[in-house]
Amino acid sequence: MARSLLPSTGMRDFLPEDKALREKMMSIIRTEYTKHGFMEIETSMVEDLDRLVNSDGGENTKLIFKILKRGDKLKQILEQSESKENDLADLGLRFDLTLPLSRYYCNNMNELPKIFKAMQTGYVYRAERPQKGRFRGFVQCDMDIMGDPSNGAEIELIHAISSTLKKLDLKDFTIKINDRRLLLGAIASCGYEESDFGKVCIVLDKADKIGNDGVARELEREGYSVEKVQGLMDIMSEIEKNGLLGLKDKGICPEAVESLEQIMEAINYLKEDAYNIAFDFTLVRGMGYYTGTIFEIAYSNLGYSVAGGGRYDKMIGSFIGQDIPAVGFSIGFERIFEILKEEGNTFFKPKQLALIYTESDAIKDVIQKADELRTDYDGVSLFKKEKKFGKQLERLSKFGFGYFALYDGSGTEIKEMAEPVAKE
Amino acid sequence: MARSLLPSTGMRDFLPEDKALREKMMSIIRTEYTKHGFMEIETSMVEDLDRLVNSDGGENTKLIFKILKRGDKLKQILEQSESKENDLADLGLRFDLTLPLSRYYCNNMNELPKIFKAMQTGYVYRAERPQKGRFRGFVQCDMDIMGDPSNGAEIELIHAISSTLKKLDLKDFTIKINDRRLLLGAIASCGYEESDFGKVCIVLDKADKIGNDGVARELEREGYSVEKVQGLMDIMSEIEKNGLLGLKDKGICPEAVESLEQIMEAINYLKEDAYNIAFDFTLVRGMGYYTGTIFEIAYSNLGYSVAGGGRYDKMIGSFIGQDIPAVGFSIGFERIFEILKEEGNTFFKPKQLALIYTESDAIKDVIQKADELRTDYDGVSLFKKEKKFGKQLERLSKFGFGYFALYDGSGTEIKEMAEPVAKE
Repeated sequence: MARSLLPSTGMRDFLPEDKALREKMMSIIRTEYTKHGFMEIETSMVEDLDRLVNSDGGENTKLIFKILKRGDKLKQILEQSESKENDLADLGLRFDLTLPLSRYYCNNMNELPKIFKAMQTGYVYRAERPQKGRFRGFVQCDMDIMGDPSNGAEIELIHAISSTLKKLDLKDFTIKINDRRLLLGAIASCGYEESDFGKVCIVLDKADKIGNDGVARELEREGYSVEKVQGLMDIMSEIEKNGLLGLKDKGICPEAVESLEQIMEAINYLKEDAYNIAFDFTLVRGMGYYTGTIFEIAYSNLGYSVAGGGRYDKMIGSFIGQDIPAVGFSIGFERIFEILKEEGNTFFKPKQLALIYTESDAIKDVIQKADELRTDYDGVSLFKKEKKFGKQLERLSKFGFGYFALYDGSGTEIKEMAEPVAKE
Repeated sequence: MARSLLPSTGMRDFLPEDKALREKMMSIIRTEYTKHGFMEIETSMVEDLDRLVNSDGGENTKLIFKILKRGDKLKQILEQSESKENDLADLGLRFDLTLPLSRYYCNNMNELPKIFKAMQTGYVYRAERPQKGRFRGFVQCDMDIMGDPSNGAEIELIHAISSTLKKLDLKDFTIKINDRRLLLGAIASCGYEESDFGKVCIVLDKADKIGNDGVARELEREGYSVEKVQGLMDIMSEIEKNGLLGLKDKGICPEAVESLEQIMEAINYLKEDAYNIAFDFTLVRGMGYYTGTIFEIAYSNLGYSVAGGGRYDKMIGSFIGQDIPAVGFSIGFERIFEILKEEGNTFFKPKQLALIYTESDAIKDVIQKADELRTDYDGVSLFKKEKKFGKQLERLSKFGFGYFALYDGSGTEIKEMAEPVAKE
């Protein structure tokens, strides 16, 4: 009898107020993405396990929730003297939206525009050790442009996502931008071997926390020569003084410098007061599959980004053996949800009326009156009057009803609810 | 290299046009349910396996997708000489929304209104043998009223779902209504044993296909006495002549008769031309957990229902050991999606403009123009002009663009797209 009532470990339920915020966010994202010419697609949450395992997903492929085979297939495996983990399962829950998108794009190429602007939102699952603020099931919102090798794609993407964040009531954010080619070109120019790039990037990535000096110290500790370390320091202080121009003068990867200049110029031209774009040489982004521009959006003084992405021109090729240029952006839906919740935003709250009736009223008349009122309210809900009417109103106010009316036929009068007692 | 690109067996991807219809449907359902005072909740798609297995889900509990344990827990099981199916898994995908709702309601009782009107939509999964029109992952849309023992709950539910179906552009549907108590009372009055009720109901359920005569023949074949069979025939022909009144005169379960009369009277009073409500004595509905009113909505001449539900006053008690009255309705989202697709409805199609530019246009100017136009269109998408411009327009029209414009600064002129060539 003592069954647990909690959601499974790392999973969540949502109360109506939170769900209303989430759906409002989703509706804004959907409307804005559509306005910017992105078409929504849907893929299944359940994928063939071998596709998930043999993908570019890096560490995430170790976090797959695997689904047990069924029926005779399972029986056969269990009868073997030693059943192995990967023989037992044939399906898995997706851990991101990028792998399904790639598969989808290749599968439907003939049905889609040559340059396809896609949006996709939905749950992804990762079997991580649960901890505060980290969940095993969470929503991602991705937008991607496939088939466009020009940096017009980057400009459209950054512009669309900035408009969307603004519509989500986020102000004062900064788009940080870099280019993998530039990053690697700069590192190479200091004499690092190609096999060192990964390690150097990991150290560079910490620059916003440990500063340039910290980067230098850590590179030295890794055993790199004074010349190599000093070379990178020179580039970084040059960038601090002159920005992108510094790299231009040094002749490092001119095509990437030019591309970044074009992107930033266009975004500065289009952008609104609410946000900025800035070149950030220490922006690295973890995933191995990025091949060009990378970007991230930092919100106010938060220590984490609310969106990120980049160009990945090689990934789709793994499905069809033919490279397709692609660039994508992912909104951190769960982070923005937490920000909006904490900021106490109310823009999402539906306008709700409680229509209260008594035993002596005919329910059909009350419903008819409710239907009339439904043109003016997002929601009208019927409640039978309780003995402790004051208490009832207080509770309804707490549940988000801003208005109430005692049913009285054509004389029904609508009143505003007193403010609810603040929750502790 | 030859990796399959198809979704996993029984799962689906959706192309933009289909996804747009699905999201439009969802938005209408959400808006209407909210208007009628239902509050949206969300539960996790992943549930503890033991809760799924030990539930009221009947046959569905045999169709659970089970998720393999992970890490050391899995290792331990695999090291045992004989690993058993249920030891290998600890989680599963939900097979309906009713079990999670019950758990949710019990878990959050203190945070919810006493009478809680809930709506919930989302994917559920069943490991069925895939066949045409039957999927392993599909969307359900449920609305439930918890805590209200009166038939006002039934009236509100039926009214809300009827409004929703009308808003979904479904006309000419019939709400069939019955009451489990009445059904069982009538069967009992003919002398059948309680242990026969299930069997008799299964036969009765076929009446719309095999007719009253067919029911009689099948009951005889099952070995029931002529008196018992004739008794049921008498009741059925009495109902054909006089409807509910026939049962009233026979004194069968008067409280159920009265309740049905009240519900039908209220719905007839509130209803619009688009639909009807009718008592149907042969409506049975499969699930064992219904305890009172049951209903189903039949659309035009289709051989299946588009929505169904009923009262289940005993189910929530299994979680907390205290009965909570509950009544629910579920919309057959996938069926309605297929109907709207087949009927070629276009009400969901976004108003989309293709803004076409050339190499010589600055992308930032084109985007700025697009932003201006975005106030008048649901979506404005940029496309570079292709050599075969006529072909390009044809393709864009096929992808749902109703309008196009060649970028020309302030002189940009919008034209309506020619009708696309009909798909074969």
